[in-house]
Amino acid sequence: MSALARAVVAADPLGATGVRAAAERAVLDHVACAALCDADPAARDQASHLLAWARAEGEPVAGRPVLGTDARLAPSRAALVGGFRAHLLDLDDTHEDVRGHPSASLVPTLIALADDAAPLPDVLAAHAVGLEAMARLGRALGPAHYAAGFHPTATAGAVGAAAAGAHLLRLDEGTTARALSLAASRSAGVRAQFGTPAKPLHAGMAAQAGVEAVQWALAGIGAADDAVAGSVGLLASHGVEADVREALTSGFGQTWAIAAPGLWMKRSPFCSAAMGLVEAAAELADELDGTVDERAARIVGVRVRMRPGADAALVHRAPRTGEEARFSAEALVALALLGVPRDLAHLGAEPLDPRARALAGRVVREHVSAGTRGTPSAPGPDPRTGRAVRDMWSGVDVELADGRVLAAQVDRPAGSPQRPLPDTALRAKAAEALGEERAAALVALLAGPDATVGALTALAVAGAP
Amino acid sequence: MSALARAVVAADPLGATGVRAAAERAVLDHVACAALCDADPAARDQASHLLAWARAEGEPVAGRPVLGTDARLAPSRAALVGGFRAHLLDLDDTHEDVRGHPSASLVPTLIALADDAAPLPDVLAAHAVGLEAMARLGRALGPAHYAAGFHPTATAGAVGAAAAGAHLLRLDEGTTARALSLAASRSAGVRAQFGTPAKPLHAGMAAQAGVEAVQWALAGIGAADDAVAGSVGLLASHGVEADVREALTSGFGQTWAIAAPGLWMKRSPFCSAAMGLVEAAAELADELDGTVDERAARIVGVRVRMRPGADAALVHRAPRTGEEARFSAEALVALALLGVPRDLAHLGAEPLDPRARALAGRVVREHVSAGTRGTPSAPGPDPRTGRAVRDMWSGVDVELADGRVLAAQVDRPAGSPQRPLPDTALRAKAAEALGEERAAALVALLAGPDATVGALTALAVAGAP
Repeated sequence: MSALARAVVAADPLGATGVRAAAERAVLDHVACAALCDADPAARDQASHLLAWARAEGEPVAGRPVLGTDARLAPSRAALVGGFRAHLLDLDDTHEDVRGHPSASLVPTLIALADDAAPLPDVLAAHAVGLEAMARLGRALGPAHYAAGFHPTATAGAVGAAAAGAHLLRLDEGTTARALSLAASRSAGVRAQFGTPAKPLHAGMAAQAGVEAVQWALAGIGAADDAVAGSVGLLASHGVEADVREALTSGFGQTWAIAAPGLWMKRSPFCSAAMGLVEAAAELADELDGTVDERAARIVGVRVRMRPGADAALVHRAPRTGEEARFSAEALVALALLGVPRDLAHLGAEPLDPRARALAGRVVREHVSAGTRGTPSAPGPDPRTGRAVRDMWSGVDVELADGRVLAAQVDRPAGSPQRPLPDTALRAKAAEALGEERAAALVALLAGPDATVGALTALAVAGAP
Repeated sequence: MSALARAVVAADPLGATGVRAAAERAVLDHVACAALCDADPAARDQASHLLAWARAEGEPVAGRPVLGTDARLAPSRAALVGGFRAHLLDLDDTHEDVRGHPSASLVPTLIALADDAAPLPDVLAAHAVGLEAMARLGRALGPAHYAAGFHPTATAGAVGAAAAGAHLLRLDEGTTARALSLAASRSAGVRAQFGTPAKPLHAGMAAQAGVEAVQWALAGIGAADDAVAGSVGLLASHGVEADVREALTSGFGQTWAIAAPGLWMKRSPFCSAAMGLVEAAAELADELDGTVDERAARIVGVRVRMRPGADAALVHRAPRTGEEARFSAEALVALALLGVPRDLAHLGAEPLDPRARALAGRVVREHVSAGTRGTPSAPGPDPRTGRAVRDMWSGVDVELADGRVLAAQVDRPAGSPQRPLPDTALRAKAAEALGEERAAALVALLAGPDATVGALTALAVAGAP
C-alpha cells in the first residue's frame, strides 16, 4: 500500500495552527475567481463554450453545481468547467511548492464529490490535505519537472485533487491508494499552453481527473498500489532529475503547506511570476508623474532583473493583446511604469495599449544569480518549516531621458505568503465578484461551525440572492 | 501552425498499397477483442464496473454505441469504456513504433465521433492516419520514453486518437492543430499499472482524451498552435532523451505504419513481449511428451533469453494468478513447456496452476546483446521502409533430468508483421467472439465500398443478430 495513501487517510489538519483560516481564505478567493471570470468578455466566451459542450453531453443523473453559473453537470464535468473558470483569468491562488495553482483544481473536485449535506469544515480539511499532497509531489518532482515543460497545475494537480477527494469521502487506505494511482495515470499538461485558454483548462482537467480517479476507485476499478512513487511510476517518468520519494510522506501532518509557507493570492489577473516586477515598477511610477504619453516620452530604457528561471512562465516578450500581456514581464512592467492599471479592462482580449507595446519593446531581461552585487543574499530557510524559500527577488531599473536612473527592488511581493493579501483586500475582491452582501454571508459561512456544502454553493452560483 | 496538423489534414492513405486491407483487419480484430472481453469473468466484472459508472453519470443527448455491449453513452464515455474493453485481455493489436496498442484507442475514438451515416472507408482512412501519427510520435519520443516509465498506449495514444478523430471529421488545419494540442495536454499513463486493470484503462483514457480534444477544439477552446513539437511541449517534457522532431512529419504520407511494418496481432491473451518466448517454448514442448506432471518432473531448469529491455513489460516474475501470468516470461514459458494452453481459461483471475508456478520459479532470464554467440545478428532495416526493425529475437533453453539440453529460438514470432496472423486465424478469432455469421458479415462489410458506421456498429454491439 502506498505511504501517501496512508498519510492522506490519517491526516487531520484542522487542529493545526492556521490551517482552517488559510483554507477559508482559499475557498473564498476561489469563489470570487469563479465569478469574476465572466467579467472578461474573452474568458466568458471560453467558459461558455466549454459549458455548452458539457451540457450537450447529456442530462446528469445527480448533477453538481458549477460555481459562478446556474449549471448542474455530472460531477466530472462540473469539476472540469469549474476548474477552467477559476483559473481563466489567472487571478486565483498559487503555491510555490506546487509551482502552480492549487485551489482551482481542489475546490471544484470537492464541490463535485460532496453531497449538499456534507459539512463545510470537511471540505476545508480536504482542501488542506489535497494541497499538502500536491505540494509534496511538487517538491518531489523538483524544479527539473517544470524546466522540462510540465505544468504542475495539471500534473501535481491531478494527484492532489484525487487526494482531496479521497479524504473528503473518507475512503479507506486501499481505495485511496487506487484513487491516487489512477490519478497518477492522468498527470498531464505542458507549459506550451501558457498564454492560451488551454492553460486554465489544465486546472479543469486536473479537477476532472481527481473526480474520475476517486469515482473509478469507488467503482472497483483495479490499479497499481503505488503508481506515484513505485517503480516506473509518476516520479520516475515525470521527475526528470533524481527524485526524492521521502518528500512525499516524511512528516506528513506535522506541517501544512496551506499554512506554511502558505498560498499566494492576487488582486490582478496576471502571472504571479511578475508580481514582484510589477510592484517594483509601480513604486518607480510613483516618482514619474505626468500623463501616459509624457511618461512614455521620458523613459529611455528599462532593465528587469530576476533569478535565472524565475521568469519561465512569462512566455510573451512582445505581446499583442492584453491576454498575452498577462504572461509578459515586458508589457506588465511597461503598463506599471506608464501608470496604466493592470486590471481586466487592460489585460483582456483587446490589443495592448500601443504606448505600452512600444515601451515593452525597450525592456531588457537580465538574470542574476544569488549573491550578485545589487541583489539580496539568498534567503534563508522558512523559520516555520526549515525548508528553503523559493527566491522571488525582483528588480527594475529605469533610465530616464534626463540621465537619471531609478531603481527599485522587491524581495517578496505583496500577496506572497510573507506579505499576505490582507483580509480586507480579499473581502473586497469577493465583494467585487459577488456583491457586498453575498461576500459577507460567504465569509460568515466559511468561519462558522455548522455550515454545509449546499449552503456554500447556494451563495456561490449565478443568480444567488 | 503545427506541421503535424498539416500532415493529418492532407493525408489520403487509402490509395497506398496495403493500407485498406490492414485497416480492415485492425477493425475486425478490435471488434473481436471488444466482444471477447466478456468471456473472462474478471474482465467482465471490471468492464461492467466502468460501464455502470458511466451510466450513473447521466442520460446522453446523442449517445454512441459501445462495441460488445448494448450501451449508448455520451461520446467521450463511449470511447473510454470501449477502449477499456478492447484492451482488457491484452488480446488486441500492437505496433512496434508505438510500443503499445493502437487500435484499442483509435477505433473507439472513431466510433464515438462518427455519425451512423458516415462511410466506413472514412473510418478506415482515419484509423491509418491516427496510427501514423501515433507511430511517428512513438518514434520521436524514442525508447527512453518507455524506459522512464511512460506507457505509450496512453501517451502517444491520446495524440494519435485526436489525429484520427480530426481526420475523420475533416477538421481544418487550425482546428486540427488545436485538437492535437489539447490531446498533448492529456498525454499521460505510467507503466506502474502493468498487470492491473489500469493498464487497459489507459487505452480508454487515450480514446476519451482523443474525443474530448476534438470536441473541445470544435467547441472553440483555444490552445497553443503546437503543444506537441513546440517549445516546452510534449516532446520536450516526455521525450526524456534528445528528441527528433522531424520524425513527426518528414515524409508523412509516403509510407504508412499500418502497412509497413504493420500491426502485430494475437491469438492469445498475453503481452506481446512474450510471444516469441512462448512460441520457442511451445516448439520444445512438442519434443517433451507426457502429462503435465511428467513434464514438470523431467525439467530441471529453464533459461529464457532476449535483448536487454525486450522484457520490460513482463513485470511479474512470480505471478500468483493467471492475470498476472499474462505479464510473466517465467509463467508463460512454464505453461508452454508443460503443455498447458495459454488461453482465457488458464490466464484469468484464478490462481495459476501450481505446477506452472513451481516451474516458473526455476526459470532464469538472461539478457543478450546483438551479435552475442548463439543469437542472430542484429536485423537489418525493414526493406519497405528503410527503418531499423526492433529486434524481437527470443531464445529458450531447457535442461532435462536425463542430461539433455533442448534449445529453440524465434526471430520473429507468429503474429508479428513479418509472420502475420493469417486471415483464416483472424476470422476464427472473430467467429469465436461474434459467431460465424456475424463474423462473416463483418468481414464482407469492411471490404465493401458502401458500408456505413451504423452498419458496422449494428453488427458489433451485444445482442446483434
